[in-house]
Amino acid sequence: SIDGSQLWSDLMETARFGATARGGLHRLALGADDLKVREWFASTCRALGCEVIHDSMGNQFARRPGTQPDLKPIMIGSHLDTQPTGGRFDGILGVLGGIAVLRALENGKVQTRHPIEVVNWTNEEGARFTPPMLASGVFAGVFTEDYARSRPDRDDITLGEALTQGRQAGAQPCGQHPAAAYFELHIEQGPVLEAEEKTIGVVQGIQGMRWYEVRVMGRDSHAGTTPMTMRADAMWAAARMIDAVHGVAMSHKDGLGTVGIVDCQPASSNVIPGNVMFTVDLRNPSDTVLEAMEQDFRARIAALAEDCGVEAIVSPVWNSAAVHFDPTCVACVREAAEEERYSMRDIVSGAGHDAAYMAQVVPTAMVFVPCLNGISHNEAESAEPVDATAGANVLLHAVLLADTR
Amino acid sequence: SIDGSQLWSDLMETARFGATARGGLHRLALGADDLKVREWFASTCRALGCEVIHDSMGNQFARRPGTQPDLKPIMIGSHLDTQPTGGRFDGILGVLGGIAVLRALENGKVQTRHPIEVVNWTNEEGARFTPPMLASGVFAGVFTEDYARSRPDRDDITLGEALTQGRQAGAQPCGQHPAAAYFELHIEQGPVLEAEEKTIGVVQGIQGMRWYEVRVMGRDSHAGTTPMTMRADAMWAAARMIDAVHGVAMSHKDGLGTVGIVDCQPASSNVIPGNVMFTVDLRNPSDTVLEAMEQDFRARIAALAEDCGVEAIVSPVWNSAAVHFDPTCVACVREAAEEERYSMRDIVSGAGHDAAYMAQVVPTAMVFVPCLNGISHNEAESAEPVDATAGANVLLHAVLLADTR
Ligand SMILES: NC(=O)NCCC(=O)O
Ligand SMILES: NC(=O)NCCC(=O)O
Repeated sequence: SIDGSQLWSDLMETARFGATARGGLHRLALGADDLKVREWFASTCRALGCEVIHDSMGNQFARRPGTQPDLKPIMIGSHLDTQPTGGRFDGILGVLGGIAVLRALENGKVQTRHPIEVVNWTNEEGARFTPPMLASGVFAGVFTEDYARSRPDRDDITLGEALTQGRQAGAQPCGQHPAAAYFELHIEQGPVLEAEEKTIGVVQGIQGMRWYEVRVMGRDSHAGTTPMTMRADAMWAAARMIDAVHGVAMSHKDGLGTVGIVDCQPASSNVIPGNVMFTVDLRNPSDTVLEAMEQDFRARIAALAEDCGVEAIVSPVWNSAAVHFDPTCVACVREAAEEERYSMRDIVSGAGHDAAYMAQVVPTAMVFVPCLNGISHNEAESAEPVDATAGANVLLHAVLLADTR
Repeated sequence: SIDGSQLWSDLMETARFGATARGGLHRLALGADDLKVREWFASTCRALGCEVIHDSMGNQFARRPGTQPDLKPIMIGSHLDTQPTGGRFDGILGVLGGIAVLRALENGKVQTRHPIEVVNWTNEEGARFTPPMLASGVFAGVFTEDYARSRPDRDDITLGEALTQGRQAGAQPCGQHPAAAYFELHIEQGPVLEAEEKTIGVVQGIQGMRWYEVRVMGRDSHAGTTPMTMRADAMWAAARMIDAVHGVAMSHKDGLGTVGIVDCQPASSNVIPGNVMFTVDLRNPSDTVLEAMEQDFRARIAALAEDCGVEAIVSPVWNSAAVHFDPTCVACVREAAEEERYSMRDIVSGAGHDAAYMAQVVPTAMVFVPCLNGISHNEAESAEPVDATAGANVLLHAVLLADTR
């Protein structure tokens, strides 16, 4: 079974790469610290007897052979990149939990029928290169590799350039790599398990999510001489639109709405802004409700643009439909948690995960464990060692169950 | 009298320094293009027989001697720096109009009793280094030189460092330079003169203005997993506050309110922002009403912070009380406009000008001319040659009248 203290020490050891002063991580995809943790991943897995390869999108696969070489691998994965002010568990627990499974198999001299592969997916967060889950998306055929490689960061370095500079692109084309099943362990990133004092979330699927960019165009003019009634103030309009995004979320059942990035130009205290761009993230577990939210959002933006005398363009940036996981894989997770006598509940993921795209091409399920106050995408993100161990243990037993089916 | 075509060709010639693709100027204080136009100013004034000195704040003074060396100079001035996306007239017309006056005196072989000085003030816009009118403020004793030199730009280069790097600081301490009167020609930057088809604005004074920075502190968290009711969304709160700034302006007679800069962190599409900073510019011709606006603004910010579950801190950054110009100098402007038979009206300036601070230590007045659609702090800012000439002509005759008093 899982060596919880080794798993915890791996978590703390890798948290050195990109550590922030406030106890979090700043480890943007393919940045210097991500390259260091990737090196750590490869050498740690090699020390456990695995072969480690990179595919053309920089995804890292550590492979432990099975007894039946013709069987497709069972994959365990998640990501090691973080948000700009991210925590030490989001994604990382999934990859290091996978390594803990490899170690348990190795220490217990367990032979599996299927090869077992632990994957570190490139650029899951979507913080450096939008959209999120870009490389698992290429793996699953959701995005073309050309599209993914062309995505720019804020300094206009493309993902393709970053892969080359960091020497992360391998020879194997991304996606030509079949799998029998995919399991992902993750912190819940929300408050439900903690509030109900449950150790394991048996994840049923992932809610739908849509991203947009809104460009608001008014007219730069002088803050001291332009009468209020003669303004075309793009920031005032954007402010009302941002409030409307909140309003949309509040008026649809289970709706969420977030504006995370705002760019206001020309950015001088005494100039009425003529150009504002902001991002919008809308989510709902139901694709039908999410569609209604989009219509509501578009109507409100149009009405406010008119009311404020500005123009507004809403551009869809990304969308990921609601995901329903594979019943057999979900059953493996549930039975594993039962075997190990953990308290549990069914849950739907609010966050996107590489599992969302993997579910389109491979039978997939996820395991959630609680995190402190449900806080994530925050340097204060925290989880208990006992829960981390429990999650990895369920992962281990779910993989072993899947290996027999 | 004024050579209008030479004035216009000076305006067009200097508009090369910092020209933008859309016909405006990007000439931030003490940047490379500002250094070029400063060099042009010095050599042009020297060619007109003036001595040119820099004071310790980089203010440039071009001096034409008078017949009575013991008399203090009559000054004409404005600024050559611009907003990030500024126009070709704001400030520039005042300095180049001053040069046109020097040229008219020289060509007409006119001797004045007082020396005449044309001044180019450093960093009037407040776009690179806040607050505006920083160097005329030091000249007038409103700011200490230490304070002014310590002001940082967005790359944390201080004004003092920029002065040294650009070799713009002269030996004469800023301020030790008495003057008999100060006149400033400027485009109105607002719509009044154009709408009423008046050529000259006889400026009575400048409205009061106050700048603030508001910091909103919430909690970074995940856009997909944090229920709407558990958020501390600093951007949603800031959006409502920005709308409230507009509301404050609308609910006080002649009130103006502008949010020009918004900085939203950590700036990732799927992170609820934990920190937002925005600037606020409130203005009113009446200091009493402006004070009421500030109270209203502070109360609304506090109420919204509470309502949104965030903290907000309002810090005053700068304020400039309403200014009333010197009646004798204003009379010189009016009489000059009458002599030259221009249509005119009294007007109050909505924008701050170096004249606001000069008025505290020297008898001061200003001349306004119309600008296209009242637009300023915009690349499309425009003025007619005939109005530019008229403004410089009024400047010339106002100076000659002041010279006799
Ligand atoms: N797990 C996670 O935070 N993924 C990022 C994609 C999302 O925004 O949900
Ligand atoms: N004239 C001018 O635009 N000055 C800048 C100071 C202000 O914001 O009014």
